[in-house]
Amino acid sequence: MEKWRRSSHRFFKHSLSRIIVDHRSNSTPRRLHSDLCPGTGISHFNNVYLERRSQILQRDYYIGKSQVFISGNLVRACGDQRKHFGSMASGLQRNPMFATVTLDDVNYFKGVLGEKNVIQDEDRLATANVDWMHKYKGSSKLLLRPTCTEEVSQILKYCNSRRLAVVPQGGNTGLVGGSVPVFDEVIVNLGSMDKIISFDKVSGILVCEAGSILENLDAFLANEGFIMPLDLGAKGSCHIGGNVSTNAGGLRLIRYGSLHGNVLGLEAVLANGTVLDMLGTLRKDNTGYDLKQLFIGCEGSLGIITKVSILTPPRLFSTNLAFLACNDFFSCQKLLLEAKRKLGEVLSAFEFLDGQSMEMVLAHLEGTRNPLPSSLYHFYVLIETIGSDPSYVREKLEAFLLQSMEGGLICDGAVAQDTSQSSSFWHIREGLPEALSKAGTVYKYDISLPVEKMYGLVEEMRLRLGQSAKVVGYGHLGDGNLHLNISTLEYDDSVLRKIEPFVYEWTSKHKGSISAEHGLGLMKANEIHYSKSPETVQLMASIKKLLDPNCILNPYKVLPQSILH
Amino acid sequence: MEKWRRSSHRFFKHSLSRIIVDHRSNSTPRRLHSDLCPGTGISHFNNVYLERRSQILQRDYYIGKSQVFISGNLVRACGDQRKHFGSMASGLQRNPMFATVTLDDVNYFKGVLGEKNVIQDEDRLATANVDWMHKYKGSSKLLLRPTCTEEVSQILKYCNSRRLAVVPQGGNTGLVGGSVPVFDEVIVNLGSMDKIISFDKVSGILVCEAGSILENLDAFLANEGFIMPLDLGAKGSCHIGGNVSTNAGGLRLIRYGSLHGNVLGLEAVLANGTVLDMLGTLRKDNTGYDLKQLFIGCEGSLGIITKVSILTPPRLFSTNLAFLACNDFFSCQKLLLEAKRKLGEVLSAFEFLDGQSMEMVLAHLEGTRNPLPSSLYHFYVLIETIGSDPSYVREKLEAFLLQSMEGGLICDGAVAQDTSQSSSFWHIREGLPEALSKAGTVYKYDISLPVEKMYGLVEEMRLRLGQSAKVVGYGHLGDGNLHLNISTLEYDDSVLRKIEPFVYEWTSKHKGSISAEHGLGLMKANEIHYSKSPETVQLMASIKKLLDPNCILNPYKVLPQSILH
Repeated sequence: MEKWRRSSHRFFKHSLSRIIVDHRSNSTPRRLHSDLCPGTGISHFNNVYLERRSQILQRDYYIGKSQVFISGNLVRACGDQRKHFGSMASGLQRNPMFATVTLDDVNYFKGVLGEKNVIQDEDRLATANVDWMHKYKGSSKLLLRPTCTEEVSQILKYCNSRRLAVVPQGGNTGLVGGSVPVFDEVIVNLGSMDKIISFDKVSGILVCEAGSILENLDAFLANEGFIMPLDLGAKGSCHIGGNVSTNAGGLRLIRYGSLHGNVLGLEAVLANGTVLDMLGTLRKDNTGYDLKQLFIGCEGSLGIITKVSILTPPRLFSTNLAFLACNDFFSCQKLLLEAKRKLGEVLSAFEFLDGQSMEMVLAHLEGTRNPLPSSLYHFYVLIETIGSDPSYVREKLEAFLLQSMEGGLICDGAVAQDTSQSSSFWHIREGLPEALSKAGTVYKYDISLPVEKMYGLVEEMRLRLGQSAKVVGYGHLGDGNLHLNISTLEYDDSVLRKIEPFVYEWTSKHKGSISAEHGLGLMKANEIHYSKSPETVQLMASIKKLLDPNCILNPYKVLPQSILH
Repeated sequence: MEKWRRSSHRFFKHSLSRIIVDHRSNSTPRRLHSDLCPGTGISHFNNVYLERRSQILQRDYYIGKSQVFISGNLVRACGDQRKHFGSMASGLQRNPMFATVTLDDVNYFKGVLGEKNVIQDEDRLATANVDWMHKYKGSSKLLLRPTCTEEVSQILKYCNSRRLAVVPQGGNTGLVGGSVPVFDEVIVNLGSMDKIISFDKVSGILVCEAGSILENLDAFLANEGFIMPLDLGAKGSCHIGGNVSTNAGGLRLIRYGSLHGNVLGLEAVLANGTVLDMLGTLRKDNTGYDLKQLFIGCEGSLGIITKVSILTPPRLFSTNLAFLACNDFFSCQKLLLEAKRKLGEVLSAFEFLDGQSMEMVLAHLEGTRNPLPSSLYHFYVLIETIGSDPSYVREKLEAFLLQSMEGGLICDGAVAQDTSQSSSFWHIREGLPEALSKAGTVYKYDISLPVEKMYGLVEEMRLRLGQSAKVVGYGHLGDGNLHLNISTLEYDDSVLRKIEPFVYEWTSKHKGSISAEHGLGLMKANEIHYSKSPETVQLMASIKKLLDPNCILNPYKVLPQSILH
């Protein structure tokens, strides 16, 4: 481990002997945003990284020496055989109420969309039938690419009248099997609907079509001095319509809040082809029920989102990042409280990992350097600040760190001096899923819990499993989002039985959520009762049946089939 | 007008000769928050102020020399006779499907709630039957005060089985007739359910009963170093359940966003008595449809909210306020854009008023001093900043003001030096409704519009009305919320005909909202089509009928009766 130089900043030099900084810039690892896929421990990456990651996944799933186990009963991968999951593993039967696509259907769609937007080519269908993790695979024979809302409306109206099941598809970057067919559903891909419709520079309100790629929107806004209020590793591929449909969380949530607050309007098409114009561009509108909220996070099961109006914040340029060590989880919590109070308006991320996570990264993630090499601590925290004034934000962070160290909350720490160092700090936190997958078999859970309860689950799991597995915990502490990961050298059924359903029961008992940011999709549709009461699930089913009486939209997903039919 | 001293602050002293400050502290007017009631021009105030305001209202409505006209056809007051509005003025007929309360019903409720929580006393009913503006008056014979969710459930289950209509009531501070009976509905007041259930200091998540008074919650949080994410003039009376049911906006919206983002969970009771436990305390939870969103802003028509979980931000203490002049509305817009970019994370309010508004205040509001007396400008802007570091926030604001003045966006300005001066600045903006009501008859409209369109409505209205009326515009520029006020010496039908339906049509044409933050209530239930498409209104009605098939909850409100029966 190379030696890290002390900061020359007067404040740290004189007062904060343990807060150190690294001026070296010889490594520039990409920021992987891997924490965006906590349920699987596998990151959403952009296209460049996808390729590399795909190789890892292929090893996990196809060669089978090292396997990734996903929470839930549907999608466990065991053994060495080449496997696809989802419908095969779940024991689901195709709903016989649904019709099968005929030549007449195809001709109808060609009439509406034109020949080139009605895809039957096997290679192109193969890509659209499988999720990018190759976990779920459908057998659709038809992919439609509408170019406007009216076409989406005509497609759905027809499918509804014919009882043809439909799966809406955006960038197909989801992790719970929500964006691919389970059987032979017609795929409706919004990729051709990617126009920016308007941007109001005064209010920061952007209106665009649902197929717009998140990264393209962010690039457009960068030129205007604004920023998308959400950021995902999959931003190079994912569509804003998919983000909204899945209520995507991401890295900026602690600062800018959820899409339920930031999405100002939607246009959506119901199963019967009705176009719902809810495309408001107003921050305030109290005229009746806020129906658009139903479509945020409905995973395409209530309607297909065709346009989005979203509030975007101004882009601020001063970013700082600190990598800190704490002796116990209580100190991490207290540090979060102090950071929210003292860094207040500039705090933009507050992440944590435990000592076991750090060991895992150091042992298995190539090119990782420990920013605090003098000791292995129980907990590590990353604090990021973003503001409009570089020197102020920096001084504010450093003053906070000094105070926190003097108060005993922090026992060691380093502040990144440039983007290269920031990347190397983030690499530790975001490289964790990769490190875990290299260590052997990993059982992964994406859990939301009240912050004070978060680490209790890790500790109980550790006691429960003893020496049979390594249990590590990390995640978005600022959002109460824990990534619980359990690592064994090889897959072991007895370990899994000790984990499940205990992990769900424990989460449920502590009023947590079994899906913090991914949705339920196919993977967890039957597990909803762990986080939602029977009365609310029943009401969801009633709303589903009200909006989509034939249940043609994204069938087999989100809700248990048993309450829909 | 007394002379205002120049600031001694070096920056302003040397560079900003026109930015002046006032160190006098001889007047300490209360901050009235009058802008929170833009639809009527009448403020929500706390209890102390309510009494005084009540006298003004009595003059307006009962003596009839000076009248307040509310937008919409339901509630116009003409002539000198003593009038109550709502059902009388609207021509609404009591729905004969609803039963009338019997002695057996009363005895049932006494069995559930105990004698003392079943109110039949005429004086107590008189208060609950009328809204605080004395605009709407019902004739309920029964007020119930449940003390827990189970009691609310039993009440509703019984009322539903008996077809007894119910009006949920919180602090009864609404302005659109949403919180009082129209006829003889049973009033269910949540005032006895005011317990704080939990507060998580790390996450800032507060859980409380729906009858908790907003000001009490804020006071509780002040001790913990946190703040409620909404602030209303009515905070001394209004309940958090009512705030959530009406999706209250308020002063902190520009900074902390809407309740759709801040409310993390709800418990609500449906018309049939079903208790929906949606009381999550998580920032992230993607397990199924986000049903609680339906109840935020449903104005009690889908269920009665009994508990609320809300995310509260840390309380920051450094507040600054600038009162500025601009030559045109384009400069105001540009200033907003620059403020969002350069003040970024510390911006907490951005309000505007036009020159005509200032004239109105100076002429009719006692004790008002013009902070910029050297000239009457076309537009005035108030910019408030709140941050965690006093000297920084101040310097940041002053640097921004200097730059904006040098760039020609601001032509004059003053920065408050203490809370007394802040109050006197706010008094101008927030005293506007009072000034207008003193000037004669006022026709008032609460409109949301895209910011660039906002002032166009004022200008068109001015052209349209010519010399027959004074047209003034002010409001929350940062939120796109315009308060359009038209003042005449006496009520004139021909003026009203020139205003309506033009104002609604113009708003509708520009994709605005006819109710920015008050809801529709009884007053605007029939006007919803100006802001919502037929398809969305139809879906709202379907959802209403799904959740409340007998339509017992808050009848005659929110949606047109014609589509429900």
